[in-house]
Amino acid sequence: MSTVPVGALLGAAPAHIAAVGVPDFADVPRTAGADVTALDWRPPASGEPDLAWKLAELTAHARVEAANAEAVSRLLAVRPVWRDVVTAREALPVLDDRASGRRVLLHAGPPLGWDRMCGPMRAGVVGAALLEGWADTPEAAGRLADSGAIDFEPCHHHDTVGPMGGVVSPSMPLLVVEDPATGRRAYSNLNEGAGRCLRYGALGDDVLDRLRWMGGILAPALRSALRARPDGVDLRAVTAQALQMGDECHSRNTAASMLLLHELAASLARTENGPEVIGFLAGNHYWFLNFSMAAAKLSTSAAAGVPHSTLVTAFARNGVEVGIRVSGLGDAWFTAPATRIRGMYFAGYGPDDANPDIGDSAIAETYGLGGFSLAAAPAITGFVGGTVEEAVRISRDMARITLTRHEAYRLPLLGGIGAPVGIDLRAVLDTGIVPVITTGISHREPGIGQIGAGLTHAPLECFHKALQAFPVPATSVAATGVPAVDVSA
Amino acid sequence: MSTVPVGALLGAAPAHIAAVGVPDFADVPRTAGADVTALDWRPPASGEPDLAWKLAELTAHARVEAANAEAVSRLLAVRPVWRDVVTAREALPVLDDRASGRRVLLHAGPPLGWDRMCGPMRAGVVGAALLEGWADTPEAAGRLADSGAIDFEPCHHHDTVGPMGGVVSPSMPLLVVEDPATGRRAYSNLNEGAGRCLRYGALGDDVLDRLRWMGGILAPALRSALRARPDGVDLRAVTAQALQMGDECHSRNTAASMLLLHELAASLARTENGPEVIGFLAGNHYWFLNFSMAAAKLSTSAAAGVPHSTLVTAFARNGVEVGIRVSGLGDAWFTAPATRIRGMYFAGYGPDDANPDIGDSAIAETYGLGGFSLAAAPAITGFVGGTVEEAVRISRDMARITLTRHEAYRLPLLGGIGAPVGIDLRAVLDTGIVPVITTGISHREPGIGQIGAGLTHAPLECFHKALQAFPVPATSVAATGVPAVDVSA
Repeated sequence: MSTVPVGALLGAAPAHIAAVGVPDFADVPRTAGADVTALDWRPPASGEPDLAWKLAELTAHARVEAANAEAVSRLLAVRPVWRDVVTAREALPVLDDRASGRRVLLHAGPPLGWDRMCGPMRAGVVGAALLEGWADTPEAAGRLADSGAIDFEPCHHHDTVGPMGGVVSPSMPLLVVEDPATGRRAYSNLNEGAGRCLRYGALGDDVLDRLRWMGGILAPALRSALRARPDGVDLRAVTAQALQMGDECHSRNTAASMLLLHELAASLARTENGPEVIGFLAGNHYWFLNFSMAAAKLSTSAAAGVPHSTLVTAFARNGVEVGIRVSGLGDAWFTAPATRIRGMYFAGYGPDDANPDIGDSAIAETYGLGGFSLAAAPAITGFVGGTVEEAVRISRDMARITLTRHEAYRLPLLGGIGAPVGIDLRAVLDTGIVPVITTGISHREPGIGQIGAGLTHAPLECFHKALQAFPVPATSVAATGVPAVDVSA
Repeated sequence: MSTVPVGALLGAAPAHIAAVGVPDFADVPRTAGADVTALDWRPPASGEPDLAWKLAELTAHARVEAANAEAVSRLLAVRPVWRDVVTAREALPVLDDRASGRRVLLHAGPPLGWDRMCGPMRAGVVGAALLEGWADTPEAAGRLADSGAIDFEPCHHHDTVGPMGGVVSPSMPLLVVEDPATGRRAYSNLNEGAGRCLRYGALGDDVLDRLRWMGGILAPALRSALRARPDGVDLRAVTAQALQMGDECHSRNTAASMLLLHELAASLARTENGPEVIGFLAGNHYWFLNFSMAAAKLSTSAAAGVPHSTLVTAFARNGVEVGIRVSGLGDAWFTAPATRIRGMYFAGYGPDDANPDIGDSAIAETYGLGGFSLAAAPAITGFVGGTVEEAVRISRDMARITLTRHEAYRLPLLGGIGAPVGIDLRAVLDTGIVPVITTGISHREPGIGQIGAGLTHAPLECFHKALQAFPVPATSVAATGVPAVDVSA
């Protein structure tokens, strides 16, 4: 086959070509000298005809639109306030081991049993068993888990979120975030800081000693300091300010952690172990992460269970599988294998050492933070050798798959426009754009801990499965032009 | 005169015109339909022939270039470290009233006497006299100043800088910034916070009570906490980090103030009045300003007195006049009338209430911060209804009048390039671009205080006068191609 110059085909006028589809479509005429604009377009629903038809039926569907408007307004109406610090067994009936006599642990992501858990999550279980005194050695803790004597439940099933392994045991302190208007609550564990942490699957006396100190010293000091703040601490205000200070409140929490400490520093200084506690908090740049996650959980779960709503209320990863939940599909998980992370590694480690994507922290992205607010934190793109421009592009892309923008969370690099919030299942499948997540990287073997950080995404397969399960509401209502806003049925 | 279409003059080809000079040059052909690029160019030295010739003689002059390289390297070599808090009479011989029996006050900007002082600076003098017990009422303090019983000296003449009125009296605490390599020191007073402050010319029991508390409680607590830090606090590290967090370290110090408090919070919590002091610092978003200024003073004064160097070592304003100092011109001030500020005003106030530009804080700009690092703090441009793009443009413009970029102070919006630092007298006059300053606005009447914030600039007249005074070194050295780097002569 001989190559005919594009100019010759089209005559003397310069050729301006818009190419849609696979990159080759643009490359061929470009090589031939044409001026080609490659459109970033993929066929809806990855080109699967049945799904694409279903997507078309749900698009601009009056009942879906009304349901999404309701779900989004519920999400945005939540005002997350830090109210308290309590032990997990006080907060969550499922962990009330003294009443039930059961040994239960929570973990990150969709449900899975001990037999399928990845290395860092198993390390979290072993560490928690040692902390609770259920075993005396890591080996004994492993045998206990092998024997089936520990039950496992996802954090997400109990209004709780935990970063990385996300293992929560009865004696661990939880932070309590509350929506004052409704009294609804969500929980997260307390952040251990950087370095060797149980959430990354590190094990050792240093890790356990810190967890005991957090339960025995840190938690009571925080409780005491919070008593001086009967209205609690407004986490929306802290988040909004931190977005002006280089944080995206998932993988960068430097400003938010300082702002949160500032709210309580004077009160903490009055407590018995004030200097020690202030010293720990001043050195923990990730301190706010778990608050960001609990605030996100509280807000997105307010949007859950709205019939016909295509809003994504959760994205969570257990290190083996990742899964999403969709408002109109209730508590069901739609899962896919956990993805690899494009990241930077600590010296001596590389991609072969990395566990696949893990942790509940991607709840931040369902709330408009993390990857969705990446333009607020261009420093994070350094994780993957990226630039300011890439951070801005990702935040702009995320706005193509969300239902609205957050009125309080504004992105300074985008002229103060709100963070894109409320992932729409339909928009993800229509555009083929997947949610971008900023995340840490655990070593795949138990006992080692964090080895890097980077960017990952929610795989399209989760969204395909959710669309397959999504019922198309009767269209008669839309035909009348008067949408029924009965979302309670 | 009839208008001839530009196209008709030039024939059928589309006209592309580059216009240089006054805006009309571009507007006329643009109105006629031509595609006009207006170059941002002004004639050197404002088109004054004698100055322009002198500027040409100094341009690419080997001895000037060598002197500037030396001055800039001295500036960049300084590592500002917060070492101590002492009273002004302990730090500065001129204020040692107990030894001298004299009543001396320092003030911002170039020298001026009581008779010429503006309202807010007079209020600062009155407040200081009350604080020192030199008078019992504001009226008596005013009469004391009228009588000539108080001597006035610029802060800048005593290694000191003070924001706004900049009045420093013997009992006031000063922060001490030191360069460990040389032992050189610079000083500033402590920042009172927002609202009604003496530095803005507010007067009242609230203002004086706070100053007394700062001397009696705050300063001893800081001294005590610093004792736990024998190496002091590295202000370069704090500044570098704050630039990544939305501060330009002149008019926005939110992140830097938090970072600085974090360095000492645990130690402060151990001091007698820890909770009270931490509460004050946590609520003071301007706390770092005076540290930024002292660090800038220490660094720029290291570059002072290099013969033949055109580096600007100070820009300071006393509310009546503004002035610059130039390295090769020693301690001389080159002044112009104080400019008005383009700003936003608090409710109830407007430009007619504003005092002209005042304060030593523009030392930040001579150190590459403030307006020069505006791209780090686009929020500041909101003061004048500006945008992210304007902030970036200003930082880029400032790089056209500076000798280098700061290796540690990096601007995230500009891809991490260093802040432009080292204002070159020649470049200002060659381009007509004047240094942009971010600043607060005082009410012109004494006793009221801050009424807004905005942007201002160093007027060209100061630079004209400095160029007039600048000696052109013998050119023989340059002709040999071997520049003499003897800058000690």
